[in-house]
Parts: sequence; structure tokens; C-alpha cells
Amino acid sequence: MKQAPSEAALPRGFRFSATACGLKKTGALDLALLSSDVPASAAAVFTQNLVVAAPVGVSKAHLKASKGRMRAVIVNAGNANCATGAAGYNASVKTVEETARRLFCKPQEVFVCSTGVIGVPLPVEKILRSLPGVTRNRRPSARSFAEFSLAICTTDTRPKTAAASFRMSGKRIHLVGCAKGAGMIHPNMATTLAFVATDANLSPSLLQKTLRDVTTRTFNAISIDGDTSTNDTLLVFANGAAGAPAIQSGSAAHRAFSKALEEVCHSLALQIVADGEGAQRVIEIEVRGASSETAARRIGQTVATSPLVKTAFAGGDPNWGRVFAAAGRSGVKFDPNRVDIHMAGIPVLRRGQPLDFNERAASNRLLEKNVHIRLDLHAGHASARYWTCDFTAEYVRINASYRT
Amino acid sequence: MKQAPSEAALPRGFRFSATACGLKKTGALDLALLSSDVPASAAAVFTQNLVVAAPVGVSKAHLKASKGRMRAVIVNAGNANCATGAAGYNASVKTVEETARRLFCKPQEVFVCSTGVIGVPLPVEKILRSLPGVTRNRRPSARSFAEFSLAICTTDTRPKTAAASFRMSGKRIHLVGCAKGAGMIHPNMATTLAFVATDANLSPSLLQKTLRDVTTRTFNAISIDGDTSTNDTLLVFANGAAGAPAIQSGSAAHRAFSKALEEVCHSLALQIVADGEGAQRVIEIEVRGASSETAARRIGQTVATSPLVKTAFAGGDPNWGRVFAAAGRSGVKFDPNRVDIHMAGIPVLRRGQPLDFNERAASNRLLEKNVHIRLDLHAGHASARYWTCDFTAEYVRINASYRT
Repeated sequence: MKQAPSEAALPRGFRFSATACGLKKTGALDLALLSSDVPASAAAVFTQNLVVAAPVGVSKAHLKASKGRMRAVIVNAGNANCATGAAGYNASVKTVEETARRLFCKPQEVFVCSTGVIGVPLPVEKILRSLPGVTRNRRPSARSFAEFSLAICTTDTRPKTAAASFRMSGKRIHLVGCAKGAGMIHPNMATTLAFVATDANLSPSLLQKTLRDVTTRTFNAISIDGDTSTNDTLLVFANGAAGAPAIQSGSAAHRAFSKALEEVCHSLALQIVADGEGAQRVIEIEVRGASSETAARRIGQTVATSPLVKTAFAGGDPNWGRVFAAAGRSGVKFDPNRVDIHMAGIPVLRRGQPLDFNERAASNRLLEKNVHIRLDLHAGHASARYWTCDFTAEYVRINASYRT
Repeated sequence: MKQAPSEAALPRGFRFSATACGLKKTGALDLALLSSDVPASAAAVFTQNLVVAAPVGVSKAHLKASKGRMRAVIVNAGNANCATGAAGYNASVKTVEETARRLFCKPQEVFVCSTGVIGVPLPVEKILRSLPGVTRNRRPSARSFAEFSLAICTTDTRPKTAAASFRMSGKRIHLVGCAKGAGMIHPNMATTLAFVATDANLSPSLLQKTLRDVTTRTFNAISIDGDTSTNDTLLVFANGAAGAPAIQSGSAAHRAFSKALEEVCHSLALQIVADGEGAQRVIEIEVRGASSETAARRIGQTVATSPLVKTAFAGGDPNWGRVFAAAGRSGVKFDPNRVDIHMAGIPVLRRGQPLDFNERAASNRLLEKNVHIRLDLHAGHASARYWTCDFTAEYVRINASYRT
């Protein structure tokens, strides 16, 4: 587990708090609030699933209505508020209204996120009863941030946090983020949620553009089981409180900011994969020599979501035939007779011809905590990386008995 | 297990044989030959995977060269002859040449199929040494057919056979088929292979058209793990030996033939699903009220290949949220607020609203051998069915330790 960010790593002008409102049966923290002291530029990426939870709809509408200037996000864990009908929608609306009233801002400046079981009515009165406390107790402290990152968890075995910083115009800009879940590995305790706060100064549109770009290479390049959740949400707030000038598109400062944001998102995304249910190791699939980045990513994704590839990795089996066959069904055109494959650094296929290798040595390397697989198509100069975890009997056991 | 077809169920004018040529380490039957006494109309469906085994390329070319008039198929199990380079291609060519010489036909009238481990050179001399015997011992008998159906198996727990018949013009037309494998559940003992023989009389082009149509609703509507093999092949031979007139497109006889072919393919496809590694039950996903059959099938496929849905079925968990969420990420547009879901006959979602139901009763029904799931989109009149098996810890155990 990574250490939670220290006081010095926090961006200025943000406050965090968390409380136990009674949605989690264990009595653990389950209601969390992040707010910026001033309106912040905000950007968001939401689930592509057609079946979306009520809070996703509300958050999307608010981001649009406020033209990308937001103040806060209120998050509950323990109930996804999905497939809950009109009552579920009203619960989300009521939650943001009451939060906004206590923060002295407009409802449309507040995001709302939920994560937990699908199809069970959200007992919104529990949230409303706890709102005064959670608003009052907001602190710009590392401890509050740590509590926030814990409160959003459901079946995660550990909270996931990351931080990065860079200098511009004599000021140090900080980014801090946290995330929960692992794809739709727990579809009924649904969801990936991720939040990033920074005291950088940039416009909502540039923030959104940068976030989309970074997401492609981070949160959209991981898979536990290929199942997209109904609640997935990634939010970034940039409040400019570091006092540096506004970041302009394409500038050196923009490159530094993109790099820092990617660092935070990459770290959070990989922590999610590593915490995948029953996962023993993280697999990095690197596809090189593709005709385009899209083609490379598509092959990476097909390999990363193949149950046969993922079960082979559970047993440390250097089964390159499964990797090759998965690439072949990805829909990307390539010449199989030009393909090279390396498993954990060991060449196993060169120009489509199998190579002799020491199976025992390969298996030992594949049983390590981090495993690297490389496919070179020799069809161009584009590349992409995709991350997944191994697929264990433990995963099946957990998911086969989730509700019963 | 189904009984193997009796003598009376066999179509006329076909001979079968099998022998142990030494490719399977156990010494079991592993070389099989099916031949028609006269040139037969032939139709074929091959894998869509870009990475294809040598015999697939040879068989495709032969079907084209002979304009759909074929005499035989020679099949080996124990080695897929895939990713084996030029030597593998030469091995397939040599196999058909020697088979054709002994059957007194042209090489281009002979199909060749291989199934087994990927990336290991095929010891073709073992096949060539056994060809005289396997050609000489061909018999038009139920026992020979049973041996053929056994010889093509790899890690199947049982052979899969099916038969159907119908009457036309005073003659009884017979169809008999066999299959092995289960998707790419054993990618290194690769493959679905399926063979159907009939004494019906119809042109190669009508046979191909009928086969494509039937395949969509049978072999292309099953999934064990979503992995397409490099060797998948389905062949149909129609030699006309029943003595009935040629079947014309769109006639009553054509409908009867299509129905009989679908019956055989449906039975074989479902036997494959039921024999999926570690599988405890067969799940039928029925999607109704779709705007098109393609849309319905796409949703069915997405639900059927979701690891979360399949693991829930392993535990008899009436987890309809996973089914709903999988449908939502299928790429098909529909209104979630109009969807009904039934799990094993029990209504759990109506017009997008969750219903109360007895979880224990539902779970008991979901633990039966055959489970039916129904989604109604209320968006049109098209429907489709898709079949899969549950995803058990046993599947993971087998596939994690396959080579090591």
C-alpha cells in the first residue's frame, strides 16, 4: 500500500471530510465531501454504459449547467442508487440541494456520486441527517483527505491515493487524487470512482481536453473483467489557489500539468488493478509496431480481457499461444508471420515462428508481482500499453457467492 | 450423454474410420477419416481469427478449387498445426495428397483439419504411416462413426453426436454430425471442429447459404469464454445418395432440410456448451423486443460473455444487476426504463423498476442444469437466443495449470 499524501502534498484551497451515515452495515465511513474554497474549473469522465445510475445523470447535467465551474462533490458508498427509478433521481437531487445550501453555493455547482449495491432504494434520509456534520467538519488536512479516500471504498482491500507536483512561474502546483473499486469487478457494490484536486489554474475546456487525453492512457487502459459499471466517474477540480498564472494550451506548463495528471491517474489506475478481486499480479500488455495507437490499444485490450490469457497468468503458464490467438481475434489487421512475442522478457515467438525457451525459467518470471508482455507487429510505429490482473479461482469464489 | 446414432440413422454413401497414430500421448484414437463414395456438395464455416492454422488455409483453398464438390476430410487430434511456419503448411499439403492418392480422388477434393497444441511442429510422419490403415478400414457403420467422433476429441469429457431426418419425394433423408471442443476453452488443445454428413441432394451454393444461416443461430450463438480459436471448422457434406431429387431454394424440402440441419447443429453446439470446462449448467439468454435480430444477438452475446454474469451463475446468484449492466455496455441503444428481466422464469425487473422476489426460491431454480434468462427491451419485434455455461473455480484451476 502506498502512503497517503502528506500535508505538504495537498493542493491549496481544498477541504475534505467524511462520516458514517449508516449506509454501510459495518458502521464504517460512507459519506464523503470534497470542496474547493472558490469555484474551480472541473472536468469529468463518466461511464459509457447505457444503464446509468441517477447520480451520474445529475452530475453530468450540473457540469453542463455551471459551464465547468464547480465547488464540490458529495459521495456515498454502500448504495449505487442505480435502477431505482424516480425516487432514486429525487434522492440525488435532494442530496446536492442540501449540500449546496450548506456550502452557500448553487446546486448546479455540486457533483454527486454513489457506489454500492444496484437496485436497492437509497435511504436518502440517512445522508440528509449527516450532511450538517460532514459539511461543518471539512478540513484542508492530510488526515481529512485520508478519511475521504477511505469513505468512498466498498469492497476494496485498501484505499488508493496518489499525488504529484510541478513548478511553474516560481510556484509549486500540487495534484492529489484518490480512487475506489476495480472496473465492474463488484457490479453490485459498483464502480470505479476517482477524484483529483489541484491548485493549478486552467480553463474548464483545457482541463476537460487534458483529462480525456490522460484517461485514454490510464483509466481507459485497465481491465479487471471487461465489465463496465453503471456508476463509473472520474472528476478533476482545478481551483487556481497556488497563485500561478493560467496554464495555456500547448505551453511548457501545460505539458508539465499533463504529465503530473497522468502520473496521478496512472498510479490510481494501477492501484485499482492490483486490488482486483483475487488478483495476485499486475500484467502489463505492451503492443508495439502497430499501424496506429488505436490498433495497438485494441489488441492490448483484447489480450487483457481474454479469460484464457488471464487464467494462464494465475498459474504462471508461459502460454503465448493464447496471447497470439487473442490478438488474432481483436479485429485489427496484421500479418501473423511478422509478429514477435516476449513473455516476461523472454522471446517466445519471432516473425511468427515459435522459439525454444526454458519453460520453467519463464514460469518463475511469470509468477512475479509485475509481469510484462510485449507484442511487436512490425506493421508501423505506434504503440500502447494496457494493464490487467490475473484471473484466479478466488475471483470466481467471491463473485459466485456475492449475494447468496 | 446422448446415445451415438444407430445404423439406421446414418446417411447413405458415407464411410468413417479412425486409428491411433501416436499424436495423443495416451495412445487413444487421434486420426479420423470421413469420405463420401461419390463427390458431395460441401459447405464450410471457418474461424474468423486472423491467426489461422495451416490446415484451415489448405481446406479453404481446396473448397474453392473444387467448386464445392468434395470427397473427404482427414482430421488429426493432439496437434493444432498452428504457428508452425512453412513446415506446418507442407505437412497439411502432404497429408491431403497422400489421402487423395489412396481414395483415388484429387487432393483438392480433400479437407484437412487439426486440433491440439499450438506452436509445436506436427510430426507428419506419424500421420502418413497410419494413412494406409485408416483409408483401408473405412466402414459405413455406426461403430465407425462413433470411433470417428471419439478420435477428433482432445480434452472433451465425451464425444458429441447428433442426427436428424426428414422425408421428401418418398425418400427418407438422413443427417448425422459430430463435434469436439468448446470454443477456445482449450486454446492449446484448440478448437471447435464439427462435421455433418447427409445423403440429401443440393447444390454447393445452396448448401453454403443454408449452412451460414443455420450457423448464426447455432455455433455462432454459443460462448464458453469469448476466445475464438485458430482452428475452428464446421464442414457439411451432401452426397445425394438417398436418391431424392435436388432440393431447390425456398421449397418445402429446403425448409425441411434447413430445419433438420439446424436441429443437428443446435444439438452439437449445446453439447459443446454443456461440456465446457468446469461447467455445471447451460444458460440460455433470450433477448426479445429488440429493434433487430443483430441487436438482440449482440446483447445476448455481451451478457453470455460477461465474467460477472457467468460467475454469478456458478453460485446460483439471482444477480440481475449484472445482466442489466452487461446489456447496457453491449453497444446496442435501448431505453433502460422499458426493460423487463426474468431470471429462471421469475420476474425481477419490470419497465426498469426492480421487483421484490424470493431470493432463495430464485437461487434454487438457478442451480438447475438448464437455466433460462429473458430480457425484453420493448423496442421492437426481433429476438435472438444465445447459450453459455457458468464460470467456475474449476475452469480457472484447469486453465491456470494447463502447460505447467
